[in-house]
Amino acid sequence: MTDSNKPASGEDSLIARYFRPIATDPGAFRLGDDAAILKVSGDDIVVTTDAIVEGVHFLSDDPPDTIARKALRMNLSDLAAKGAIPAGFVLTLALREANDAWLAPFARGLGEDAAQFGCPLLGGDTVSTPGPLMISITAFGRVPPGKIVHRSGAKPGERIVVTGTIGDAALGLDILRGGAVAAVLADDAAAKEMLVGRYRVPQPRNALANAVRDHASAAMDVSDGLAGDLAKLCAASGVSAVIDAQSIPLSAAAATLLARGTIGIEAIVSGGDDYEILCVIPENRFEAFAQAAALAGVAVTSMGTVIAGPSVPKFLDAQGRQIALKRLSYSHF
Amino acid sequence: MTDSNKPASGEDSLIARYFRPIATDPGAFRLGDDAAILKVSGDDIVVTTDAIVEGVHFLSDDPPDTIARKALRMNLSDLAAKGAIPAGFVLTLALREANDAWLAPFARGLGEDAAQFGCPLLGGDTVSTPGPLMISITAFGRVPPGKIVHRSGAKPGERIVVTGTIGDAALGLDILRGGAVAAVLADDAAAKEMLVGRYRVPQPRNALANAVRDHASAAMDVSDGLAGDLAKLCAASGVSAVIDAQSIPLSAAAATLLARGTIGIEAIVSGGDDYEILCVIPENRFEAFAQAAALAGVAVTSMGTVIAGPSVPKFLDAQGRQIALKRLSYSHF
Repeated sequence: MTDSNKPASGEDSLIARYFRPIATDPGAFRLGDDAAILKVSGDDIVVTTDAIVEGVHFLSDDPPDTIARKALRMNLSDLAAKGAIPAGFVLTLALREANDAWLAPFARGLGEDAAQFGCPLLGGDTVSTPGPLMISITAFGRVPPGKIVHRSGAKPGERIVVTGTIGDAALGLDILRGGAVAAVLADDAAAKEMLVGRYRVPQPRNALANAVRDHASAAMDVSDGLAGDLAKLCAASGVSAVIDAQSIPLSAAAATLLARGTIGIEAIVSGGDDYEILCVIPENRFEAFAQAAALAGVAVTSMGTVIAGPSVPKFLDAQGRQIALKRLSYSHF
Repeated sequence: MTDSNKPASGEDSLIARYFRPIATDPGAFRLGDDAAILKVSGDDIVVTTDAIVEGVHFLSDDPPDTIARKALRMNLSDLAAKGAIPAGFVLTLALREANDAWLAPFARGLGEDAAQFGCPLLGGDTVSTPGPLMISITAFGRVPPGKIVHRSGAKPGERIVVTGTIGDAALGLDILRGGAVAAVLADDAAAKEMLVGRYRVPQPRNALANAVRDHASAAMDVSDGLAGDLAKLCAASGVSAVIDAQSIPLSAAAATLLARGTIGIEAIVSGGDDYEILCVIPENRFEAFAQAAALAGVAVTSMGTVIAGPSVPKFLDAQGRQIALKRLSYSHF
């Protein structure tokens, strides 16, 4: 301790070195206060929180910048599915040690994503842990008053739509764990890289938020598996659904693995970490929604229909027979 | 999985059983959506986040309800020090297992404190971890636009004031660890219980928030040690301070331990977990502030003066000599 009015603890210098440079929003007060200000202007504030744990949601040897991006993007995906525009986030980081080689790329990835998605770092807490790394993010978004899109609201006859492709992230995780997918794709480095990239760095569909807000009767992000998440949306809406499994959008790699029998459809629809938007669009809105999605540069696929009733959503094969699914989604505990 | 539209995962049923009953705010949507709504009405939203880790911020055998209360109250203390009125919070809970004997009292303590402090649970995330328990809370408060109280703003000549008593929580931790304090107080169960209670269940000074907002030129909560936190406040304000160590408010137990030489003043001013408010009050505001504090039922003590200059705040003994402090505060890393 020198005779200076800058008390330099390890925690403070860590924050000053890595996180102050990316906390550019005036409401963050340069991370030099006990709290931040989130400015509002008549909108509703949408709040979401998602945490990731080393060895559970990411792997110890995942590149640090991808861990940061995943932690933020999981939350951005929730905002997008609710029709909200990102407004900022706070970060809790639990570390075993202050390791420059890990923190520098982590903060760089976080800062780049914060800038790209217009979601500034407002504050946070850095704590030591003897256990696995953990990152918890609470993100904020804005919607016009009363315009948040809920899981409830889906009505019979409406279309069930999903963005992007489903199942890739679960296949990427299988590759990282040296599973069957890795062996089958041994000679296809590009496919492996794509699938691993989908596991490590989700592509949240924030570009679609306004279209979801304007047209969807219900929406959520697909994070724990399409089948389980659709069941949750249907439960919240008091409806059921029929999905044409052939219409579920797949990457070329996933389609090949499915065609070769390396994986079954269950691996696709119950795998987690997709971070796509599942939404329900009334028939008379679908054309306008599809046009808005095209303008936003987000692929959307209509894959089924909402029906009345209390049953778990059905997935039908090419012959119209119901596919038996033992597992709908990933669950902790 | 039964043929029902209620997909029951372990995580979902855990949330439904323990946390839905305490998420009574309409903006929480009964924890049945991907996000919550924080309603605003022209105020600035103050955001703060603090996390606690088993074995670092609390002990494995601390009663679960006290762990919940501490996690929330640490954040409430930040809101109080910023002059903000609680508006709600989100919770991230990392657990090794879904253990009813732990979760039931944890949720009860959390719900009771949420009700007591008018700070409803809005949402959260529950994840599994192979490591220590961790609880991260992000709390929200309201202040009239531009009225947040910063760490910066203290000016030479103003009074340095603190609420409650300082050092008790660090002594309570020493007792739980079987340190010297436990031995000296072996026959004084009431004192031991009080000190342990101060460690496990902070008493945030939210009743003082309006008085801080109306009268303080600078404020922060004392969480890492009075000396270090005062140094931070002075650094943020570009000033220094002189503290009369005899004026630091102590509990009877702490005063006795100090008088008997069991502990030195350093243990008092560098111990963490006080969760009192440190604030700076202009001389011409002090009487009104003290009256407001009395009405709020919060003890406040004037213990020093802001001075100009860049030096670390000085603590003076009864003879006016500067006390050498090797350690100012607790720091991770």
